[in-house]
Amino acid sequence: MKNKPIGVFDSGLGGLTVVRELIRALPGEDIVYFGDTGRVPYGGRSFETIERYAREDANFLLRQNVKYIIAACGTVSSVAPHTGALLPVPYKGVVAPAAKAAALATKNGKIGVIGTQATISSGAYSRELSQIDGSFQVFEVACPLFVPLVESGWIEPSDPVLKLTVRRYIASLLDKTIDTLILGCTHYPILSGAIGAFCGESVKLISSGHASATEATRELCELGLLRDERTGGKVRFYVSDITASFSDVTNILFGGDLAAQRTLVSIDD
Amino acid sequence: MKNKPIGVFDSGLGGLTVVRELIRALPGEDIVYFGDTGRVPYGGRSFETIERYAREDANFLLRQNVKYIIAACGTVSSVAPHTGALLPVPYKGVVAPAAKAAALATKNGKIGVIGTQATISSGAYSRELSQIDGSFQVFEVACPLFVPLVESGWIEPSDPVLKLTVRRYIASLLDKTIDTLILGCTHYPILSGAIGAFCGESVKLISSGHASATEATRELCELGLLRDERTGGKVRFYVSDITASFSDVTNILFGGDLAAQRTLVSIDD
Repeated sequence: MKNKPIGVFDSGLGGLTVVRELIRALPGEDIVYFGDTGRVPYGGRSFETIERYAREDANFLLRQNVKYIIAACGTVSSVAPHTGALLPVPYKGVVAPAAKAAALATKNGKIGVIGTQATISSGAYSRELSQIDGSFQVFEVACPLFVPLVESGWIEPSDPVLKLTVRRYIASLLDKTIDTLILGCTHYPILSGAIGAFCGESVKLISSGHASATEATRELCELGLLRDERTGGKVRFYVSDITASFSDVTNILFGGDLAAQRTLVSIDD
Repeated sequence: MKNKPIGVFDSGLGGLTVVRELIRALPGEDIVYFGDTGRVPYGGRSFETIERYAREDANFLLRQNVKYIIAACGTVSSVAPHTGALLPVPYKGVVAPAAKAAALATKNGKIGVIGTQATISSGAYSRELSQIDGSFQVFEVACPLFVPLVESGWIEPSDPVLKLTVRRYIASLLDKTIDTLILGCTHYPILSGAIGAFCGESVKLISSGHASATEATRELCELGLLRDERTGGKVRFYVSDITASFSDVTNILFGGDLAAQRTLVSIDD
């Protein structure tokens, strides 16, 4: 069991930011990544469709014989929190770990959350945070332009389009005097320079992907599921479509071109 | 045959701009629209995937017993031009009609084309225009942020994010002294105010959707396929997913909320 890979899936390539964190934390582990690039983005779709896609994605990873599954997708974690309930392996989304990290970070109890339309509409972060502490005030804003901005490579903190877009989405959260901001989409850490520059040092940024990688590491350790080897882990990348921008986008999100290592699979047949 | 509906499909809701043109031109015709909102956007996907999706979309319309099919999708028209070859009814994409309209409009033979990544990568407009006149100079730019900007409602010509984005995409085309610009995506006419303001009056904008609606009208007439009734046409709307932003987006693209008239169908089973 220990020597099986960790499975990670996402609606597209955003979850690669989580894989990068996992490799840093657990360099001896094998990882299988599935990115549903043929049906990305999930963020604007209905709850029913997102639940079905999440089930199909998790089942694909099970067929790869994984020991643990991370839904490295803010949308799936928010909208389809019960995806893990029927699976024969432990399953972790990004909402609970990020909420926990934010609850530890906040001092004034005012927490902002940004994510896709579906993540924000679901209210998942508000629910999770209020279960931790009913006195938290949570302010949520959907930021549908952030993913296309990242995938276009318009990511420099000095980029004028990015700066204006950050301001338009986040100014209302600063008006609420939040001191903690959850980046509830795995693409958003790529924008943390621009978001941090706008928010200033008084606001702590919580990356949902980073929080979930940390939580998975702890849980795998507690369950006795970590490999004995501390180095040499291999990563396999599966996608449901091979897109023209694949190399550019993996360079942005993962810090390297994964074109040579990817395998195309069919998910909706 | 005459009394059957006209079929229109698109990757999502952008094709509603074409339906709007068709209703204006042919108010007596019944129309069946299919928007593949469960798999939108097609623009970043591979050629193979776009070809398969286009086939499935056209087959759905055939099952609705249509007399004519319009692929109101710049991506499908560019990347999968042969979708119509095996169909038992006439089929029209948006590339040929828009190229024809641009060829008639240009005076200096310098034509710009903007569209999704897949449309531009396909080179379909360059090929079509060079077949009309080998001396045309064609300059193409992909504008991946335009669709999310439209769907976010950031569409006012004075919108600062939109203005900056238009400038960044289109400035290089003005440097080439184009006098005609093809809006090669059905979402883009919504941005014609902002694009026109940046380009100035010396550049003529050609909407691919408008051009294809005009061409379809002419062809239906020539084939004797127009209904005798001149008013009272009905429109049915099918989608493959019901998304939270549906009403907002149909208000932007169609000028009205279509939530009460839509039917959810499954396309990939």
